[in-house]
Amino acid sequence: MSPSSPNPGTNQSWGGRFSEPTDAFVERFTASVDFDQRLALHDIQGSVAHATMLARVGVLTDAERDAIIEGLGEIRGEIESGTFEWSVALEDVHMNIEARLTDKIGITGKKLHTGRSRNDQVATDIRLFLRDEIDGVGAELARLRDGLITLADREADTIMPGFTHLQTAQPVTFGHHLLAWQEMLARDHERLLDCRRRVNVLPLGAAALAGTTYPIDRHVTAELLGFERPAENSLDAVSDRDFAIEFTAFASILLMHLSRMSEELVLWTSAQFDFIDLPDRFCTGSSIMPQKKNPDVPELVRGKTGRVYGHLMGLLTLMKSQPLAYNKDNQEDKEPLFDSLDTVKGCLRAFADMVPAIEPKKASMAEAARRGFSTATDLADYLVRRGVAFRDAHEIVGQSVAFGLAEGKDLSEMSLEELKQFSDTIEADVFEVLTLEGSVAARNHIGGTAPDQVRAAAQRARDALAALTGQA
Amino acid sequence: MSPSSPNPGTNQSWGGRFSEPTDAFVERFTASVDFDQRLALHDIQGSVAHATMLARVGVLTDAERDAIIEGLGEIRGEIESGTFEWSVALEDVHMNIEARLTDKIGITGKKLHTGRSRNDQVATDIRLFLRDEIDGVGAELARLRDGLITLADREADTIMPGFTHLQTAQPVTFGHHLLAWQEMLARDHERLLDCRRRVNVLPLGAAALAGTTYPIDRHVTAELLGFERPAENSLDAVSDRDFAIEFTAFASILLMHLSRMSEELVLWTSAQFDFIDLPDRFCTGSSIMPQKKNPDVPELVRGKTGRVYGHLMGLLTLMKSQPLAYNKDNQEDKEPLFDSLDTVKGCLRAFADMVPAIEPKKASMAEAARRGFSTATDLADYLVRRGVAFRDAHEIVGQSVAFGLAEGKDLSEMSLEELKQFSDTIEADVFEVLTLEGSVAARNHIGGTAPDQVRAAAQRARDALAALTGQA
Amino acid sequence: MSPSSPNPGTNQSWGGRFSEPTDAFVERFTASVDFDQRLALHDIQGSVAHATMLARVGVLTDAERDAIIEGLGEIRGEIESGTFEWSVALEDVHMNIEARLTDKIGITGKKLHTGRSRNDQVATDIRLFLRDEIDGVGAELARLRDGLITLADREADTIMPGFTHLQTAQPVTFGHHLLAWQEMLARDHERLLDCRRRVNVLPLGAAALAGTTYPIDRHVTAELLGFERPAENSLDAVSDRDFAIEFTAFASILLMHLSRMSEELVLWTSAQFDFIDLPDRFCTGSSIMPQKKNPDVPELVRGKTGRVYGHLMGLLTLMKSQPLAYNKDNQEDKEPLFDSLDTVKGCLRAFADMVPAIEPKKASMAEAARRGFSTATDLADYLVRRGVAFRDAHEIVGQSVAFGLAEGKDLSEMSLEELKQFSDTIEADVFEVLTLEGSVAARNHIGGTAPDQVRAAAQRARDALAALTGQA
Amino acid sequence: MSPSSPNPGTNQSWGGRFSEPTDAFVERFTASVDFDQRLALHDIQGSVAHATMLARVGVLTDAERDAIIEGLGEIRGEIESGTFEWSVALEDVHMNIEARLTDKIGITGKKLHTGRSRNDQVATDIRLFLRDEIDGVGAELARLRDGLITLADREADTIMPGFTHLQTAQPVTFGHHLLAWQEMLARDHERLLDCRRRVNVLPLGAAALAGTTYPIDRHVTAELLGFERPAENSLDAVSDRDFAIEFTAFASILLMHLSRMSEELVLWTSAQFDFIDLPDRFCTGSSIMPQKKNPDVPELVRGKTGRVYGHLMGLLTLMKSQPLAYNKDNQEDKEPLFDSLDTVKGCLRAFADMVPAIEPKKASMAEAARRGFSTATDLADYLVRRGVAFRDAHEIVGQSVAFGLAEGKDLSEMSLEELKQFSDTIEADVFEVLTLEGSVAARNHIGGTAPDQVRAAAQRARDALAALTGQA
Repeated sequence: MSPSSPNPGTNQSWGGRFSEPTDAFVERFTASVDFDQRLALHDIQGSVAHATMLARVGVLTDAERDAIIEGLGEIRGEIESGTFEWSVALEDVHMNIEARLTDKIGITGKKLHTGRSRNDQVATDIRLFLRDEIDGVGAELARLRDGLITLADREADTIMPGFTHLQTAQPVTFGHHLLAWQEMLARDHERLLDCRRRVNVLPLGAAALAGTTYPIDRHVTAELLGFERPAENSLDAVSDRDFAIEFTAFASILLMHLSRMSEELVLWTSAQFDFIDLPDRFCTGSSIMPQKKNPDVPELVRGKTGRVYGHLMGLLTLMKSQPLAYNKDNQEDKEPLFDSLDTVKGCLRAFADMVPAIEPKKASMAEAARRGFSTATDLADYLVRRGVAFRDAHEIVGQSVAFGLAEGKDLSEMSLEELKQFSDTIEADVFEVLTLEGSVAARNHIGGTAPDQVRAAAQRARDALAALTGQA
Repeated sequence: MSPSSPNPGTNQSWGGRFSEPTDAFVERFTASVDFDQRLALHDIQGSVAHATMLARVGVLTDAERDAIIEGLGEIRGEIESGTFEWSVALEDVHMNIEARLTDKIGITGKKLHTGRSRNDQVATDIRLFLRDEIDGVGAELARLRDGLITLADREADTIMPGFTHLQTAQPVTFGHHLLAWQEMLARDHERLLDCRRRVNVLPLGAAALAGTTYPIDRHVTAELLGFERPAENSLDAVSDRDFAIEFTAFASILLMHLSRMSEELVLWTSAQFDFIDLPDRFCTGSSIMPQKKNPDVPELVRGKTGRVYGHLMGLLTLMKSQPLAYNKDNQEDKEPLFDSLDTVKGCLRAFADMVPAIEPKKASMAEAARRGFSTATDLADYLVRRGVAFRDAHEIVGQSVAFGLAEGKDLSEMSLEELKQFSDTIEADVFEVLTLEGSVAARNHIGGTAPDQVRAAAQRARDALAALTGQA
Repeated sequence: MSPSSPNPGTNQSWGGRFSEPTDAFVERFTASVDFDQRLALHDIQGSVAHATMLARVGVLTDAERDAIIEGLGEIRGEIESGTFEWSVALEDVHMNIEARLTDKIGITGKKLHTGRSRNDQVATDIRLFLRDEIDGVGAELARLRDGLITLADREADTIMPGFTHLQTAQPVTFGHHLLAWQEMLARDHERLLDCRRRVNVLPLGAAALAGTTYPIDRHVTAELLGFERPAENSLDAVSDRDFAIEFTAFASILLMHLSRMSEELVLWTSAQFDFIDLPDRFCTGSSIMPQKKNPDVPELVRGKTGRVYGHLMGLLTLMKSQPLAYNKDNQEDKEPLFDSLDTVKGCLRAFADMVPAIEPKKASMAEAARRGFSTATDLADYLVRRGVAFRDAHEIVGQSVAFGLAEGKDLSEMSLEELKQFSDTIEADVFEVLTLEGSVAARNHIGGTAPDQVRAAAQRARDALAALTGQA
Repeated sequence: MSPSSPNPGTNQSWGGRFSEPTDAFVERFTASVDFDQRLALHDIQGSVAHATMLARVGVLTDAERDAIIEGLGEIRGEIESGTFEWSVALEDVHMNIEARLTDKIGITGKKLHTGRSRNDQVATDIRLFLRDEIDGVGAELARLRDGLITLADREADTIMPGFTHLQTAQPVTFGHHLLAWQEMLARDHERLLDCRRRVNVLPLGAAALAGTTYPIDRHVTAELLGFERPAENSLDAVSDRDFAIEFTAFASILLMHLSRMSEELVLWTSAQFDFIDLPDRFCTGSSIMPQKKNPDVPELVRGKTGRVYGHLMGLLTLMKSQPLAYNKDNQEDKEPLFDSLDTVKGCLRAFADMVPAIEPKKASMAEAARRGFSTATDLADYLVRRGVAFRDAHEIVGQSVAFGLAEGKDLSEMSLEELKQFSDTIEADVFEVLTLEGSVAARNHIGGTAPDQVRAAAQRARDALAALTGQA
């Protein structure tokens, strides 16, 4: 990955200063081609733009440019068809492709490296690659968000218990709960696009570290590759790996969110909660225990959270205290980035497929919401609105709950007489607030759980998503 | 921090359901007031806005509102003067202030809590607090960037060796190196402002988790507090801690950058490098070894990197797998956030003070750049421009270097005759490219190390900084 | 913390080489006394041993030694009574104590520093401190383990559902589940004692980095301080912080375990599981929702996991890539270590207090175990033992389960006739294996869930704990 | 990895409860065979022991056992020769091998699974695998330590500057510095063996989670597999992954140490330090800059530190808050463990090969040690031994250093007259302590840098290493 060449036994370009060939184990230990070949098509993309620019400024002839571009096109074909032969002795993806190009078109192939170095080349490759991958991640994220919004809209009236401390707190609508998930993802989506802006900058032209003495035009290269602008500083351009860290930070927060959703899906499919059904195609059974149906997908996604957190921490550690400019350490940037991307895409795809298939068990949800006096707050609010001091209202409700515990009755199941024994203020209209439906309907402001609010919020979310993906 | 009240021994509001008081150790173990009192002034700011809104929608009378605001004003005075008495038994900053308010103005004080809960209250406090702190961090960051740009502009012609693999690579200008640092910080600054946008959203009105039955107007509260908009979903609003994670991710990348600068400052002040002098006021000596002068500030900043990385990892772990909505776990969000803020501000201040005082030792830098044949690439480029094939040029330079090693002469110190023994193509104009000045001047494109490019880049950096801080 | 002295304004010992005093902000930024004063008593302990050794080898007179020890005794009294005045200008705990000693006994106080430096002094202080703290942690850990064993023994016959994938799998005994927790902690306990061995080594005598020219006897100092041996290498002794990392690794795994227990306690106290009751004194209520009782202690402990993970990552980052020997970075080792210790002790204490008070709700546990066909595996095993091929047995059980789902009957609730319709092999003795009691009793081998095994395992655990704490 | 079987389309064992086949993407997403096939030989090893035990207790006939063992032997041959066909549809390594066994020997192959489940099987496989790998890691670690000790012994008299704060502090011997590295690794070696003890425990017999109803004898299986004892608790045995975390904690501390050595190697090979030469076979050059020789191996090892830190954090995150017993999350334990092992082994091998080939540049080291008044402390100690008060001695040395700076002379280069102008106490014997040789020789106590101490320490280190590897 550095501007160093492979084993002098196979390539004499820097043999002169060296008195012995690279140790065989060291050659393997330091080679990157096993994993960086994944950048091959973007390497070619960058090379085509570089050759085009070099011809435009007169460093290459048009014929040289054409030979290079044609040769690279053939190599692309070989790679895509799987016939390209990768060599560890050639160390990395760049040298493999350059050597093959020279095989094909002779010494002109070497001219492609004019005015650049492997340091700025690999930085360009990663950015081109990551930019494409970000767009793929964004598409899956949008699909998942869309599924959530649609399901939330459909389930705007479905009531379940809302929890704090995993204790029944107040009734909420299932649609409202799903939109909470959606909001998390909406922020992740913004972060992804913020990151993309910082990825979309051209390092090429930084050469080894200081720029080049050739009369390159970096604006041309940037434009050809769709980059917003050339990087401002060559030393920074070859040593910056912020964008990879920022992407893994995005990915970590996203996986954190998916881990929360997963936790809830696992809880909800347990016999104890029994709130939803996940289709069989997202679950597995047991060869030993015939009764089992396991929520493998959310469990596995929850488990993958650690993987991405680890990559973030690995990249931060990698860059800590590195002096400028390029150091060999940086070769370690690719595998965590690649694996983070694959993990994010896999998890998003699994969730985007699965979420629309979630089936709420409405009766079970409603029954759970009724248990646990979830409308106790509503009764207190009712009393306060009728002029009872908050402290007194709380006391009255407390006595009612104690009575309900003893009698096995929820507040809404008591008769008016029963309720009135705790406060004369209570009238027949209390039952509007004591029902689950009354309770959720009363939280009728922006951000509240009322079904009307959920439907309106779903519409706003849909509009926001459209605005974002239109812009991306 | 949850919608739960303190020890029934001191507060009976939830005593009814409980048959014994909180364990004394548990009371201390679960209390947050020792650290969350830092939010006190923002808690009052939020309460004033909440009371104002409640009066506007008719839930409070104007007289009640005025009593509350006056009482809170007095409490603010007590806190600022250090006379406020904090009680662990009252658990957190919110209950401490509310209890004091009720002491002062009676039962009206309790009405302040109408339509909100501690869950949305603490979320609001942290966002108000963090928004202010972000602005403070941004100001120090701008000061450091400004110092770097000024120094870079002044040192646009100063030449030092550029390194890759910590081996002498090519000459660069010191100003160019400083602008590489500046570019890192410019990206950090953008990330900080992206984070600020996501912080600047109002949770208040989410109440415990589902919204409230009172006719609140969250747009009013948002406007009063300068928030861009109300949070869209109550469940999300009380359980979201993304903004804290995103801030610590920003802080981690920033500290990573400062650790790289620190590493270089430590190297440069060593006897071996001897590139710069740090003023005595940023260093310490030794009571034992009279010859020592230690670069304590960059060392300590480098050390603090781990602290902030740790906080990021801690917060990511905290939120992993938490089901909605609020859980007591979240009380653990404050200390890492506070300490990250203090660390970032301290490190930025130390650097912003120190950077303008860095004194390059120009002779020593130039001497180091001359050592190690740093213009070898320039000689190769010179030959290629004269039609020599790249591979041949490399060979010629390799022989010249070998000769120089044997004779103890840098390329620029050889006579034309000496150089010509390796290639007839070399003419007298070669010395323009072999000097350090010629080498750096030749890298004359956007992002390159040529002094003119450095001055132009400094001007663009200054403009970009002005644009950003004008907008912040 | 380095062998450097404080502000020349207050201490001229290294003023000569410096032309200006330390910057006021830098003085505060680099001072450690705000947190390292926590090491004061161990600093004195180390100094007393050092003075004793110096007198024994003739570097101090007996009178000098006595004056120093008496002076340090007085300072210890001042610190314990809170009358000692700490000065930030004196930078750290060592200089504060030394300056006070010189105030008291004159120039002899300075002689205490003979043959040592702050580098080896602080390393010694931390090890003395950490060794004591480890013993405290070990005591709390033993108390928690003891509580678990006692409870497990008592609940050896209590049946609950065992889960995999949070789906009902097979019945287990509650005592067995508790002993699973205990096994985790037993490994943590071993790790703690392994760490203690590596802590218990004497750095003193390493001086600044290379040892000292005074005729010190490090074996004497080691013996006086109860260390197993002197550290073997002075450069390593002043720069090693492995022991702190190893302790936070221990702490991270321990907190991971406590987070798993916490997760289960939170699940079990939910209305949905309803497996246990936590005493009110470990819970809090809600001032808004009168029905709430929140499991604050396990939630908070679960939340504190991130804190300790973060400290581990912070310390690993701190030490990454540091060249030998002491660097100022290392001052950052103390706060994460202190906070890890406090967190571990607090969490263990809370759990050790709480665990014996856990009340299983046996009827609810048993009911949950009956639900979900948890003895399906037992039926299959029964058939296999009677010669039915495994694949056929699985099919037969599958049909029985399907019948049970349709009829709303668990396997044990079916009549013999009902069961026989799926296989003639089934006889009346099947009910011994279909009951929860029969199922658990049948897993009767070491490590199995049978009540007899649980009681035997509890006894072995008790013996192992006694052996470990006797040895610690 | 759970006791669940693959796609019903290919395996009907749990098809009955399910109404649709697994989604194709989900099948791939949740399969582990791509990475867990690495456990294949250990899976077979465990199965052979399990079959042997089953026959001994009468669950299998001897003929069945022999058929199984013979079949597994053939499968082992297929795997080793690369002819085994792995199927993603069969999900994991266990099902792949079991299916192949049944192909070979018919229904008897199914009986191998009697009394075990995939949960305890995979836990056993990982422990067998990790135990072997630990022994391999230990061998490389011993080889590196041996190389360091040998080199240190050889270089016991070679003098270099010792640094604190990367500023010249006092002279040390190169052998002493190398033994500081060795001490770090000695602690790592101890930690590795402590971890091995906890790995070496048998999970098999835990079955799915609760033990089995078959009359297994776990002591027999443990003995056959060389495990120290059976795991005490079945729930713990299937869900414990401490051992993997503990190994990655060991690996993280080891890599931290290697990163410190790497940092120093990179510094020492720079033109600025120029302390050592690394053989060409451990370095690479540059195809662009003919003068470059880059220390790729230490740079890459330093970079790999982040990778292992990341895996530690990933595994800690994975296990946080997981309820008992097995969850699908745990499938994510293997890849970080495998990669940590490969990384540790690669880095140790590269270092063990490279360290003996390090060539100190003695003249350059000595010259650097002479620069910077590194014996100033010795002069102060000399004066104190002659009765000068410490404070006065420091002042005298300070004046001497100032004189030396002005005259361009190190202390040892001054004449006796020149020195005497600062103190009459100085006599001709002062030059014994002012020379580098005198300085290092004077630090002559255990742990000190004196050549005799280094040789003695090398001998003790050699003995300790022999004791440890004899015992491992």
